[in-house]
Amino acid sequence: MNAPAAALRPRPDAAAVEAVTHALQAAFGNRVVTSLAVRQQHANTLTWVENQPPDVVVYPQTTEEVAQVVRLCAEHRVPIIPFGTGTSFEGHTNAPFGGVSVDTSMMKAVVAVHAEDLDCVVEPGVTRKQLNEHLRDMGLFFPIDPGADASLGGMVGTRASGTNAVRYGTMKDNVLSLTVVTPNGDVVRTSRRAKKTSAGYDLTRLFVGSEGTLGIVTQITLKLHGIPEAISAGVCPFPTVRAACDATILAIQSGIPVARIELLDEVQVRACNIYSKLTLPETPMLFVEFHGTEAGVQEQAERFGEIAGDAGGGPFDWATKAEDRSRLWQARHDAYWASMVLRPGAKGVSTDVCVPISRLAECVEETKRDIEASGMIAPIVGHVGDGNFHVLPLVDMDDEGDIARAKAFVERLVERALAMEGTCTGEHGVGQKKMKYLEAEHGPEALDLMRVLKRAIDPHDIMNPGKIVAL
Amino acid sequence: MNAPAAALRPRPDAAAVEAVTHALQAAFGNRVVTSLAVRQQHANTLTWVENQPPDVVVYPQTTEEVAQVVRLCAEHRVPIIPFGTGTSFEGHTNAPFGGVSVDTSMMKAVVAVHAEDLDCVVEPGVTRKQLNEHLRDMGLFFPIDPGADASLGGMVGTRASGTNAVRYGTMKDNVLSLTVVTPNGDVVRTSRRAKKTSAGYDLTRLFVGSEGTLGIVTQITLKLHGIPEAISAGVCPFPTVRAACDATILAIQSGIPVARIELLDEVQVRACNIYSKLTLPETPMLFVEFHGTEAGVQEQAERFGEIAGDAGGGPFDWATKAEDRSRLWQARHDAYWASMVLRPGAKGVSTDVCVPISRLAECVEETKRDIEASGMIAPIVGHVGDGNFHVLPLVDMDDEGDIARAKAFVERLVERALAMEGTCTGEHGVGQKKMKYLEAEHGPEALDLMRVLKRAIDPHDIMNPGKIVAL
Repeated sequence: MNAPAAALRPRPDAAAVEAVTHALQAAFGNRVVTSLAVRQQHANTLTWVENQPPDVVVYPQTTEEVAQVVRLCAEHRVPIIPFGTGTSFEGHTNAPFGGVSVDTSMMKAVVAVHAEDLDCVVEPGVTRKQLNEHLRDMGLFFPIDPGADASLGGMVGTRASGTNAVRYGTMKDNVLSLTVVTPNGDVVRTSRRAKKTSAGYDLTRLFVGSEGTLGIVTQITLKLHGIPEAISAGVCPFPTVRAACDATILAIQSGIPVARIELLDEVQVRACNIYSKLTLPETPMLFVEFHGTEAGVQEQAERFGEIAGDAGGGPFDWATKAEDRSRLWQARHDAYWASMVLRPGAKGVSTDVCVPISRLAECVEETKRDIEASGMIAPIVGHVGDGNFHVLPLVDMDDEGDIARAKAFVERLVERALAMEGTCTGEHGVGQKKMKYLEAEHGPEALDLMRVLKRAIDPHDIMNPGKIVAL
Repeated sequence: MNAPAAALRPRPDAAAVEAVTHALQAAFGNRVVTSLAVRQQHANTLTWVENQPPDVVVYPQTTEEVAQVVRLCAEHRVPIIPFGTGTSFEGHTNAPFGGVSVDTSMMKAVVAVHAEDLDCVVEPGVTRKQLNEHLRDMGLFFPIDPGADASLGGMVGTRASGTNAVRYGTMKDNVLSLTVVTPNGDVVRTSRRAKKTSAGYDLTRLFVGSEGTLGIVTQITLKLHGIPEAISAGVCPFPTVRAACDATILAIQSGIPVARIELLDEVQVRACNIYSKLTLPETPMLFVEFHGTEAGVQEQAERFGEIAGDAGGGPFDWATKAEDRSRLWQARHDAYWASMVLRPGAKGVSTDVCVPISRLAECVEETKRDIEASGMIAPIVGHVGDGNFHVLPLVDMDDEGDIARAKAFVERLVERALAMEGTCTGEHGVGQKKMKYLEAEHGPEALDLMRVLKRAIDPHDIMNPGKIVAL
């Protein structure tokens, strides 16, 4: 799919793949699967990129087993593609050069919870919901929430974030340490469990966001947070996207520690009304949540209401009851599925960009004009506190013209974000689909430096080849 | 000074140094200095490590000038040692192989402040106090506070933090993007100005904490914060270090967003009483600060007071008046200088370790027993919310036996921290003095990986050689 990579890196020969497969079968028995259906499930499914299945899928259970797989693949120069839940959007799990998909779904142990230190140690197949179920009785939670019930290993890979990153940060801020199997089969622990360190290069953040191209994560130490004493949430309509963005900027500048502040454009609100049986006014809307003490969240909500009014929005409809809040956030989380009602039979192809918040209104407005001019249906939802938003073009996947139109739209969206000092992806990652934008975003020197890192750590390009940087 | 490095890397020959010096003089005129006094000021002064001056000091004014220096040094394989204010503790600015000290003190521009985006762009010679002076009228501040009025370039280098990292994070959390001149003379911009991104490897955090061994930072984009509407602070005595640590853990677990929570042991309190004319009870003491709304900080302070009481401490003496607060924090900031009164004529040699907070009380208690058994005077101050603490042995630098005793103590301190899943340095960095602990801390595989990174980016080892990892 990626021309330079495909040109440089041929598929391994059939004999190498066969040798690896046999050795895996000898070592792992029925935890090695070669059926086409399973292989296709392990390749990309959530975009218009073609499905490029691996040659074989293996389900290791320990770090040592992962190292065994890596050493075997390294010996035969066969690609390795780490796999979590397959919920990424940019073709991360595709196998354009074949190889071995390493499925971490049998590595699902919560190894330790250190309540006093507000951290825990998990295996990469643990999903965020599983972890939060595990933590609930201890009064703790893990905040990062990318929507899908993704695996934490996958979330490390894409540097995931989501609705409450505005308050709690992204994966880069919430991973304390990783155990990683590097391409030579070494097992590396990137850091200790201390909350901060200045003891050498930041290996932890080298791997966070590296999308499995530098190694496979086999254990993760995560920061945790106490479940807030009080949570309040509400919705607030605005006449325009710009007014909603202005209110967001003012709220953050004035120091209100919003836990979530999500923009839904009027198209998305319509979809949510239909799908989630809500009766919201069909106008740009902010979904907001506050965490703190009882008095604290009340104060935050009141101040936010005033700010929203000053920005031309309101009334701010404030829900402290848990069931109202759940209903609201369930609707927000279902936004992806809700969108489909706007064009039955079409597929929603999610994309994301992120810009400095001062440019957000302009970027969203121009994007909405572009959507209209293109004749597409494409709702917008945004983690506006971070300047990050998603567009979900609804595409008829049987219509080449429709696909081409959506692809061209994404090109323009990325160019627009880059022109505003933004990034081609705030949280979805590069995968296969956004590789072509990296030079424009980072410049040739920085992209060269990324290649230097990739080559130094993975000289034979066996780790998820054809993603992020092509060698 | 590091044996393996010294063996591998000879000083450049005199002709190479002479050629570089002449070329620098031709290009930069009187911004090139070779006097011994100035060269010695640019080497290490704050530890017992010998002063190892560079051959020449140059004062560039622009990124392009820095690139010019780097290309020249690369051509002649002459070492480059970046220099900010020289306030680091671990021998970071020493020139064990000679070379060119690149002093950034003429790069002091605040290039831009983007108030809506809560970020700013500065040159590396800007100090944190200079930046905060610049920001004050805009209602913004930059939180990281390592005590000294360090340059922001130096703070990037050591991954600095300080008293309010417990609330605002460390440099790794507050740098959005860097412009870096890499060892081949390329100018790399590590990221865009968007608040988050998943667009490739995290080059920003690769350079944060790399102590000038991978490149020279020439521009820094920093996150800013709104000056809180209200600040309150107070002091609280505890019968034991353990009780103070317990109160800290409880406060953080219960979600009180403490902005600062600093432990002073009774030795440090005594020093502060003398030096800063305070009348605090000479017992372990927490200095605490809260940021928020008027109602918020009052609530936080009340809750903290209850928690402190439950942990056996108190009374919590709460100061909302700005002048009382200033006096308190001035005393805390002067702790380093105050310590000297305990042993006139001795030099305070600061060291730091960081452990998971659950082990902090144990680590500090064992360390205090060790200090007593060693017959040293060595006050302790700690950023206890992060599990990070400093010990300041007061050493007679004319007494070899006294120096040896302090060195042996630091060895035991680091071993103790490592045995408790901690790190050999929470914020001071590795420099020359802590290189020997990295293998014990990270393991040989992770240390190898650090060397792979260093070799890939700086194959001729010209960037601050003999620091962090020796090639």
